[in-house]
Amino acid sequence: MRLADCELCLQPGGLPVWEGAAWRIVRVADPSFPAFYRVISRAHHREWTDVPPGERRVGMALVEAVEEALRSLLPESKINLASFGNVVAHVHWHVMARFAWDSHFPQPLWGLAQREADEAHLESLVRLLPALDQAVRQAASQAVASSGA
Amino acid sequence: MRLADCELCLQPGGLPVWEGAAWRIVRVADPSFPAFYRVISRAHHREWTDVPPGERRVGMALVEAVEEALRSLLPESKINLASFGNVVAHVHWHVMARFAWDSHFPQPLWGLAQREADEAHLESLVRLLPALDQAVRQAASQAVASSGA
Repeated sequence: MRLADCELCLQPGGLPVWEGAAWRIVRVADPSFPAFYRVISRAHHREWTDVPPGERRVGMALVEAVEEALRSLLPESKINLASFGNVVAHVHWHVMARFAWDSHFPQPLWGLAQREADEAHLESLVRLLPALDQAVRQAASQAVASSGA
Repeated sequence: MRLADCELCLQPGGLPVWEGAAWRIVRVADPSFPAFYRVISRAHHREWTDVPPGERRVGMALVEAVEEALRSLLPESKINLASFGNVVAHVHWHVMARFAWDSHFPQPLWGLAQREADEAHLESLVRLLPALDQAVRQAASQAVASSGA
């Protein structure tokens, strides 16, 4: 089902990285948090437990695939996972790599900024994005193949 | 494994509600967000994908059980799920019911307050907590029984 007034029914919600039958993965173009992906349900579901169990299993396998791709290239990161839907109530998971040097750590990105992000670190991270996207695509395809979906 | 300097290895992390072999559920005593539970790994794991896959499945079944218990008694809520571990890097999921009348909605609870919470709504929610705890306990036991763990 798609809703005519739901942003994530109508728009990608980020830069398209991978697309499957029930879920897509996009990268969020946030200059302060470059290594930030979303796993978004294709169908409109309000809550995580509204997603049929089989699709939910695939969705979580994709969240885990993104986490593993981020960890493989960014071993010094702390991974943050979140699904709120308070603004756009269409199931989507935020999966992002966080660092001691980023603007908000240890606050979630929705919290108060703690400092200016370290520019040199940010630039290195941005240079890694093509490799990160590729690792995410590969991990997502493997996760879906293993889940039998 | 338990770590001598990890808060969630040493302390419950909230009011004990349910305890299983690999996970426990506590309620967070936050006066602004009464319907706020945590699903906490018994063993010390830093990242979600460090948790062995079988335990991860049980953990997510428990997150979903808490979500369903909250939804059953609070149909007007929006459920928020998050796992950060930036402050205490020991896997724990936040599962909370959010409302249009709460102090931060639609911001996550870690964001900026938007208003004073509505006191009458807060009081009604607090009166529901014993029933919520009971619903969470029941849903958690069922989830673990169904998962075969």
